[in-house]
Formats: sequence, C-alpha cells, structure tokens
Amino acid sequence: MLDHYYAVIMAGGGGTRLWPLSRKSRPKQMLSLFDERTLFQTTVERLNGLFPQERILVVTVAEQAKELQAQCPSLPVENFILEPAPRGTASVVGLAAVALAARDPQAVMAILTSDHYIADQEYYRHILRTALDVAMDGYLVTLGVKPTYPATGYGYIQQGESLGMYGDVEIFHVLRFKEKPDDSQAKAMLASKDHAWNSGMFVWRVERILEEFERQMPALYASLAEIRSYWDTAQQSEILQKEWSGLKPETIDYGVMEGARQVAVIPASNLGWSDVGTWESLFEVIQTDQDGNIVMGGQYYCLDTKDSLIYLNQEHRMIVTIGVSDLILVDTGDVLLVCSKDQAQKVRQVVEHLKKTNQSYI
Amino acid sequence: MLDHYYAVIMAGGGGTRLWPLSRKSRPKQMLSLFDERTLFQTTVERLNGLFPQERILVVTVAEQAKELQAQCPSLPVENFILEPAPRGTASVVGLAAVALAARDPQAVMAILTSDHYIADQEYYRHILRTALDVAMDGYLVTLGVKPTYPATGYGYIQQGESLGMYGDVEIFHVLRFKEKPDDSQAKAMLASKDHAWNSGMFVWRVERILEEFERQMPALYASLAEIRSYWDTAQQSEILQKEWSGLKPETIDYGVMEGARQVAVIPASNLGWSDVGTWESLFEVIQTDQDGNIVMGGQYYCLDTKDSLIYLNQEHRMIVTIGVSDLILVDTGDVLLVCSKDQAQKVRQVVEHLKKTNQSYI
Repeated sequence: MLDHYYAVIMAGGGGTRLWPLSRKSRPKQMLSLFDERTLFQTTVERLNGLFPQERILVVTVAEQAKELQAQCPSLPVENFILEPAPRGTASVVGLAAVALAARDPQAVMAILTSDHYIADQEYYRHILRTALDVAMDGYLVTLGVKPTYPATGYGYIQQGESLGMYGDVEIFHVLRFKEKPDDSQAKAMLASKDHAWNSGMFVWRVERILEEFERQMPALYASLAEIRSYWDTAQQSEILQKEWSGLKPETIDYGVMEGARQVAVIPASNLGWSDVGTWESLFEVIQTDQDGNIVMGGQYYCLDTKDSLIYLNQEHRMIVTIGVSDLILVDTGDVLLVCSKDQAQKVRQVVEHLKKTNQSYI
Repeated sequence: MLDHYYAVIMAGGGGTRLWPLSRKSRPKQMLSLFDERTLFQTTVERLNGLFPQERILVVTVAEQAKELQAQCPSLPVENFILEPAPRGTASVVGLAAVALAARDPQAVMAILTSDHYIADQEYYRHILRTALDVAMDGYLVTLGVKPTYPATGYGYIQQGESLGMYGDVEIFHVLRFKEKPDDSQAKAMLASKDHAWNSGMFVWRVERILEEFERQMPALYASLAEIRSYWDTAQQSEILQKEWSGLKPETIDYGVMEGARQVAVIPASNLGWSDVGTWESLFEVIQTDQDGNIVMGGQYYCLDTKDSLIYLNQEHRMIVTIGVSDLILVDTGDVLLVCSKDQAQKVRQVVEHLKKTNQSYI
C-alpha cells in the first residue's frame, strides 16, 4: 500500500509577497528564512521517512528547475516536472496526476506547498500519513489547521459531521470552503470552533482527482487526456506546450474543491503552520527578543525599538533604529523596504507598480 | 568705519546631529543640504557686499582646513586660523580676537556660525550691518531671532528696555539668557513676546570682548595675552599649542555673555533661520510635498507615506515606504537610519554608543 504513496511539491510559484527579498528570479521557496536551508529544502527534508526520494515529485517552471535541483541533488532529475507556464494550482495538480497515472495508476498523491513553515515535523508526518490512508478510501483530503487567531489572510474550511477516527486522528466531512474572510467573519469562524484554515495541501488518489477534473473542469480534463495519451512518447513535450497555451489559469480550490464530492478535512492542531505569506506573518513563527523584535542578520543598533522586524543581508552596512515600533525593515542592498507591520500585504501593490512602470528591482 | 568690519566664521565643529550624513570627517558645515552648495559655502556667499573676502576669517581645526579652503578658494589662505584643538566657542572667539587685534586694533568682529540656514539673505545682511554699527558703540550684540513656535531645542534671550532705533531696526538691552527650556517654559517665553532665540551669532569690538575675557575668564585671558604677545613671531605656533592644551572648554554664552555688561539684542523677524540642529529641523525650512514629505535625492516609491523625510544618496538603490508617517529615513550607503521624527535628537546617543564601542560609521 505504502508503495503507492507519492509526494508532489508545487514549487513553481513566483510569489512576491516577501519582496524585496523574494524576486522573480528567487521566489519564496528558494529563500533561507529560518535557518541555513531554503524553504524548498526544508519541505523535502520534512518528508524523510514517509516517502523515499524516488517518490517525491516537484512541479516547477523551467526558470526555477536548475536551482531547485541544485538545492536537493538527491531527488531524481526525472522527478522534476516542468510546467510550460504557470496556469494556477489546478493545472499543476492535473499535470502531476497525468505524470503519476503513467507511472502508477494506483498512486495516491499528496499535493504539498514548497514555501510554508511547519514547526512540528514529526506531527506533520503523522497527519500526512493519516491523510494518505483516508485518501486511499476515496476521499479528497484537505490538510486543515486549527485557527489560533482570527486570520483574514487565510482561506477557511467548515467541518461537517465526523467521519470517525483514523488511528488517533479524527476526520470530518467538509461543509464548505470560505475564501479570505473580513475581520468579523474571521472572528465568527474562530469562535464557531468548526472551521479550519486551508493549508493549501491536499491528498487524493490520482484517479479520483482526474474524475473530478472530468466532471468539473472538462476543458482542463480534455487537455490532460491529450497530454496523457502522448506521455512518455517523443511528442510529450510538444503536446504539453500546445495544450498548456490554451489553459485558463485556475486554482484547485475554486476549480475543484468547492464543488467536489467526498471531501474530507483533517483539522490539525499544533502543527505550528504558517504560509509565510507576508513579512508580518514571520511574527507568528519566529521567537521575538525581549523588545518584541525580530532581527535577521547584519549589523544593527536599536534604540527604543519595539515589535519590529529588521532584515539585512549586506556586509559593511549598519541599520540604526530610534523610537520606532511595528515596522518591517528589509534591506537587500539594492532595495530598502520600510513598511508599517499591519500594511505588509501592500508589498504586492509595490511590485505591481514596479512591473507597470518597467522598473527593475522585481 | 566699514574698513574695520570683519566676519569670523566658526567652522571647526564636528557636529554629529545630522548623523549618519554628518561624520567626523564631514561635519555639518561641509554638507550640501539645500542646494548644490555646502552650508559653509552658503555662509561665505551670504556675506557678499558686506565684507570683502580679505576681511572674512575662518576659525577651524587642521583636519578640516584643507576641505574648507577648497570649498571657498577665493578666501585668502592666511585668513584660515587653526585652533590646535576644539575648546568651545569662548576660545574660538578669543583666538579670533587675538588674530584681529594684531591686524586691526579697531576691528569690529561678527562671530558667525558656518552651518545654519537663513532664508532671507538680503534681510540678514541688513541686520548684520546694523549689528556692526551697534557694536561700534561698545555693545556686545547678539543676533536674536523672533520665535515662531515654542522650540525647546534653542536658547532664549529676554529683551529689556529699548536702546532705540538704528535706522529701521530697534535694539534692546538683554535682561537674561536662558538655556534650552522645557516645553512649558518655551510656551511661556513665546507668549511673553519679549524673548528671542539665541542664534549663536554675535557682533562686538575686539577690544570690548577682550575686556570681558579679562574680567570674566581670567585664565583664558592670560593664555590669550600670552598668545597675543607671540603673534606674528616665529614662536606663534608653539605658544598657541602650549597655551591651548591647558584651556578648559567653555561656550561664549556661558563663559562671557551671561555675565557681560552692555549687552544688546536685535530680535530679527522673518530671517527664516534654523540651526539645522536635527533631522527634524529640516521640516522648518524645506517645503514639503502634498503629503508632508521631504524627499532628498535617490529613487523612491512612497505608498501611504506622510510627514516623513527620506534622504538617499546612493545610485542603483531604491527606497520603498508603505504606511509610515513621521519617520526620518537617511541612507548613506554604509548606514541606514530609521528614526521617529520626534526622537531625532537621540541620534547623538547613537554616535556616543558607536564611539564607546569603537565601531566605525562615525
């Protein structure tokens, strides 16, 4: 049974929400934020003991493949699957499903993010192992996270009736998915105790997800079927390119999960999970000093400075702060970002502005 | 009469209050803050038409002399008088008085700062010319500035009875000097309408100020007398060094002005004066943009940014601010200062810390 369990790491994102540290050429999964390893390396290491290296696949884009391979040289090169262009997570899942179906029609695939933070690795493996078992029974399983505060930056999953215990883990039917809520909705969902954060990680049998594509996303399914019929032939690449160019970008959540049958959620608690989606989110997962500050690298002197993040990766350079609080300061040498902590999500607007005005630094 | 009028520019200060832009090797008077000229160059140009170049003296220290001469090559080299070491403004005045007494016993000297901002040059020359005339009559004249807000960073001068008009300018006796007040004292002095800010600029006859040194600072006077007796001899430098090493640092305000006889003040209004004593003070003299910001040089993108100062003198580097207000951001390449506007005076503490811990960047 275990022989059919595969991990698929989505590592093609060009996320700019940690700009100016994350760039087009160095997206979040390639950053070392918490220790000397990159988030991608940590993601792969986290699977130790659960999946052998040959059953860990990575879906990415050509521009990132070389660097990702270099970061995890123990992964077989043929396990890196290249999307011709980013088309949203639905197409990533579809492409991985096609690749796995060709290799092992009985495959159960865990779709994993490459750029998240998880504190408790052991517990994560336990939950993931349980999710694989639940998926074997035909469920589309979502890895949920028990909310610890009324986050507005995450999607939520409402739990329905219990599906019972798988070992010591209780599984629930999914009632509905709710995209990023406003503040009062988030508070209500936290209070209800029957909502989990959507971690963006899913587990299912390959044939089950292909069924759902066929029913809910027939255009994508038709392309996937065409690609599948040429898989492992001389025309694989040509057909992939051709079909991909016609795809409409879509997320797996909106394209499949919201309308899917037989969806289960595992509301994991104590994972210590964060999507590291903004600079502010680092305060959820990094221990602050006695003044509430996070200081990452570099020379600095902080006078009357509180609840701020200071990141500096330049030598021969010093940051001095006086009388500030709740600031994000990120200095990458070519860019200095000074941002109010509660407006860290606006970094995306800045990147959009730089793109539109054809400026570098992105 | 005009032939006896001299300007003495005090340009030896190592002020670090505009750190990290001002440094030990590049003090405030050498900075170009308002246009392409340095504050020292502007100070000299401001005297055009009032003093010929040969009657403009500069008192400085050896480390700064070369750079200052380069900035104002039209000033005669022999007009740069070198203090062996900084010993406060009293000794600067004393040394200049000795140098002038040797040259012209009837000299009237205007003691001028080299690193202040003055908006109205024409009016300044008019006030200074008037002060020289008042000084001819034996007064120690202080250039006062009518307060426009309850500043706590300036010293104050209380006006007594009127000495009458010199042309269209009314002159007053000085009742007392008051060092930097607290907030409520400053408000009371502003409301009283009989206090002026002490600009740190003074005008007097050389022999009058030497009399005051003799009466109030006999130790300094003895040294000055010794130096005077060897002035323009082969031993001038040796004696100057010897006497200077024994001097106790003192300001002219505390050492002489507070206890002096026959002190007058001209309370100038509309000079547009600032001592440029902190980064915050730039908001008094530089026009802000529609968001209340002052942006000096460099590439920047400001989103929801208000009432802040951004200084960047590096190429190939960009500052981005999001959702901040009342911040001072100064980027000199090797140092980045991020400071709450109302705590700009604490920059001095940082420089003290760097000195104590033997760090560079000062």
